Amino acid sequence: MSSPQPQTVRVRETVLKAFCTAVLQRLGVAADEAALVTEVLVEADLRGVESHGVLRLPQYVERITAGGANPKPNIRPVRETRTTAVLDGDNGLGHLVGVRAMELAMAKAAEGDCAFVAVRNSNHYGAAAYFAEMAARRDMIGLSFTISGLLLFPPWGGTEAMIGNNPLAVAFPTDRGFPIVLDMACTVARGKILAASKKGVSIPADWATGPDGLPTTDPTEALKGLLLPVGGPKGYALAVTVGLLSTMLSGAAFGSEIGQVHWQTDTAANVGHLFGVIPISSFEDIARYKQRIGKAIEDIQNVKKAPGVERIFLPGEREYLLMQERRQQGIPLSLGVFKDLRQMGDRFGLELATIGSSCGRSKPVMA
Amino acid sequence: MSSPQPQTVRVRETVLKAFCTAVLQRLGVAADEAALVTEVLVEADLRGVESHGVLRLPQYVERITAGGANPKPNIRPVRETRTTAVLDGDNGLGHLVGVRAMELAMAKAAEGDCAFVAVRNSNHYGAAAYFAEMAARRDMIGLSFTISGLLLFPPWGGTEAMIGNNPLAVAFPTDRGFPIVLDMACTVARGKILAASKKGVSIPADWATGPDGLPTTDPTEALKGLLLPVGGPKGYALAVTVGLLSTMLSGAAFGSEIGQVHWQTDTAANVGHLFGVIPISSFEDIARYKQRIGKAIEDIQNVKKAPGVERIFLPGEREYLLMQERRQQGIPLSLGVFKDLRQMGDRFGLELATIGSSCGRSKPVMA
Repeated sequence: MSSPQPQTVRVRETVLKAFCTAVLQRLGVAADEAALVTEVLVEADLRGVESHGVLRLPQYVERITAGGANPKPNIRPVRETRTTAVLDGDNGLGHLVGVRAMELAMAKAAEGDCAFVAVRNSNHYGAAAYFAEMAARRDMIGLSFTISGLLLFPPWGGTEAMIGNNPLAVAFPTDRGFPIVLDMACTVARGKILAASKKGVSIPADWATGPDGLPTTDPTEALKGLLLPVGGPKGYALAVTVGLLSTMLSGAAFGSEIGQVHWQTDTAANVGHLFGVIPISSFEDIARYKQRIGKAIEDIQNVKKAPGVERIFLPGEREYLLMQERRQQGIPLSLGVFKDLRQMGDRFGLELATIGSSCGRSKPVMA
Repeated sequence: MSSPQPQTVRVRETVLKAFCTAVLQRLGVAADEAALVTEVLVEADLRGVESHGVLRLPQYVERITAGGANPKPNIRPVRETRTTAVLDGDNGLGHLVGVRAMELAMAKAAEGDCAFVAVRNSNHYGAAAYFAEMAARRDMIGLSFTISGLLLFPPWGGTEAMIGNNPLAVAFPTDRGFPIVLDMACTVARGKILAASKKGVSIPADWATGPDGLPTTDPTEALKGLLLPVGGPKGYALAVTVGLLSTMLSGAAFGSEIGQVHWQTDTAANVGHLFGVIPISSFEDIARYKQRIGKAIEDIQNVKKAPGVERIFLPGEREYLLMQERRQQGIPLSLGVFKDLRQMGDRFGLELATIGSSCGRSKPVMA
C-alpha cells in the first residue's frame, strides 16, 4: 500500500495543491474556497484514498463548466435551533459545503452541546472521513454521512438499482497523533472487482451480480452487473439508513429523485449530507478519555498476529502513516490521472511539475 | 419466517409478560421496573428476534441470583449538560437502564435539541432496536449503540478475540405504521453457522475461522473457531467504532477490561451504551418529512423483484409484520426455551400456560 504503483509519477503536496487551487480559481471559485476544496481533495490522495482525491477534479471542473455546480455558492442556514441547522449548499462543491457545515456544527457545540447540521443542495463531498476528522481535532467525536449521487444496488430482493453506496465516517480523537477513523461505504469498492478482472482471478460470490441479476464470482460478468451490499441485508439496511440520515432532514434527493443526475453535468444534483459532533468534555475528562482510548489502542495492537502480519492497525491508522510518508516523499499519481490533470492544466495555462522534473512538460518519472 | 418452527409451543403475549414480570419481582425487582424489562424482552420475541428475547431470562435470573447484577439499582446521572448526560446504571439490568437513558435523552431533546446519553455500569440490554424505536415513536430519529460483553473476533490481522459483536440500531419514524429500523451486529449470527452445521452445508469463507485461525467453509470447524466481522476490515472498523462510542464517554469496559466477565455471573460487567436522539421538527416540518420518507419507502418497495421474491421489505418492516401476527396468534417458543422457562417457574411457584392448554403443565402443542 505504501509503495507507489508502476506507471506513476510523484508530485509534491504543495505543488498539487497550488495546481488544484489555481484550476478552481480559473472557474470563478474564490481563492479561500478553492484552497478549502483542494485541501479536502489532496488529503484523500495523501491518505491513499485515491478514488476520492484529485482523480475527481476533472469531473468537478466539468460540472462547474456545464452549469451543474455553482462556483460561487451562497451557503446559508435556512432553519436553525441552538444545536441544529439545515444548511442550503446553493449547489456549491460538496467539499466546501461540507467544511462549512461541520464548522457550523462545531460552533453550535462550543458550549458543550451535541449538534447536528443537515445539508441539501450540495454535491459530491469527497472522502467522508475529512469532515469527521475536523471534529476530532477539536476533541469531539465527529460523524459524517452522505448519500451517493449514484444508484448502485437494489434493495434486498430487488433487481433494479435504487440504493447508493452511502458512506459514513466517525472519528475519535486519541493521544497517539492519529484519530481512529471509520470511513466505509456499503459495498465493496468497484476498483477491487476491476483489479480481479485484470488479474483473471474470481471474486467472492457476495460482491456483485452479473448482468442477469444473479450473484457471480466472475469479475468480468460482475463489471456488467450491479454491486451487492456488504454483508447482504445488513449492508442494505445500513445504506438505507445512511441515505435517509443524509436526506430526510434537509430535503435532499433520495431514491428515484436521484435518477441519472450524476451523469447530467449540467443539472443540480441536490446531494444531501448530515454532520454531527459529540463534545467529549461534556461526558468525560479529556485526559481520562485520552488515557482510556490509548489503552484501547494498545489492547488492539497487542493481540497475537496472524502468520505474515507484521502489525495490527487501528481504523484510520494506515491512512495516517501513509499521509506522513507522502508529505515527505510526494504523492504518487497514476499516469492516467496525471495526464488528465495536465490536459486540464493546458486548458487553463497551468503546469503541474512532478518530483525530479523542472516542470510538468518533462518526462514523467516511472517508479 | 412467520410460520412457527417444529417443536414449538405458542404462548400469549400477555401470559408471557405476566410470567416474566413475576419472575423478576420474585428476585426483588420493583413491579414497574420488572414490567419494563419484560416489555423489552418480549418485544424481541414478538419481532422474531428470539436470540434477544425471553430465551435470555434464565441468564439474567442467574446473574441477579449470583450477585452479578443489581435488582434494585439506583440509576442516576453523574454528569450532565443541557443536551448530554452520563448515566450510572448501578449494575441494573441493561433493559431497564437503557429505557431510563433513552427517556433522559428524549427529555433533553424536548425543546428541539439533539441529545446524547452515555451509560456505564449496565448489563446486556437486549435488542438495540427497542431503544431507537422509543425515539421514533416521538418523531425523533433514535440511535442506540452497545458494546458486547463477549469478545468474539480479533482485530483485522490478529488471531485473538478482542472485539465484540457491538450492535447498533437507528430508527426513523414513518407514516406507514412501522418505523424503518436498522439493527445490526458486526458479525454473522452464530446461529446461522449452527444451522449450516446441522444441515451439513458449507458456509461462505468470510463468516468465521476454524480453530487454526484461518477462514473456513466448514461450519463444524467454524463453531470451534472465531467469528469474522461482516465485510472484513469494514466490519472490524464498524465494531471498534460502536464499541468506542459505547464506552469511552462513560468509563464502561472495553477490550481487555471485558475479559471473561460475561461468564462470571457473580461479577459486575460494567457494560456501556450510548443513546442519541435527533428531533425531526428542528430540521423539517414533520408532515413533509413523513411524506418524503413515505415516497422513499415506495421507491424501495416498487423496484422490480428477483425471481421468487414476493415482496421487498424495508429494514424493520418484516419484524413489524411478525409482531402484528404474534400479537394475534401468540408467540412461538422452542420447546427448549419453554422447558427452561417452566423450570424457572417451578423454582418460583409460577406457571406458564401455552395456548390451548389450561396451564403450563398440560402437554405442549406441537406445530
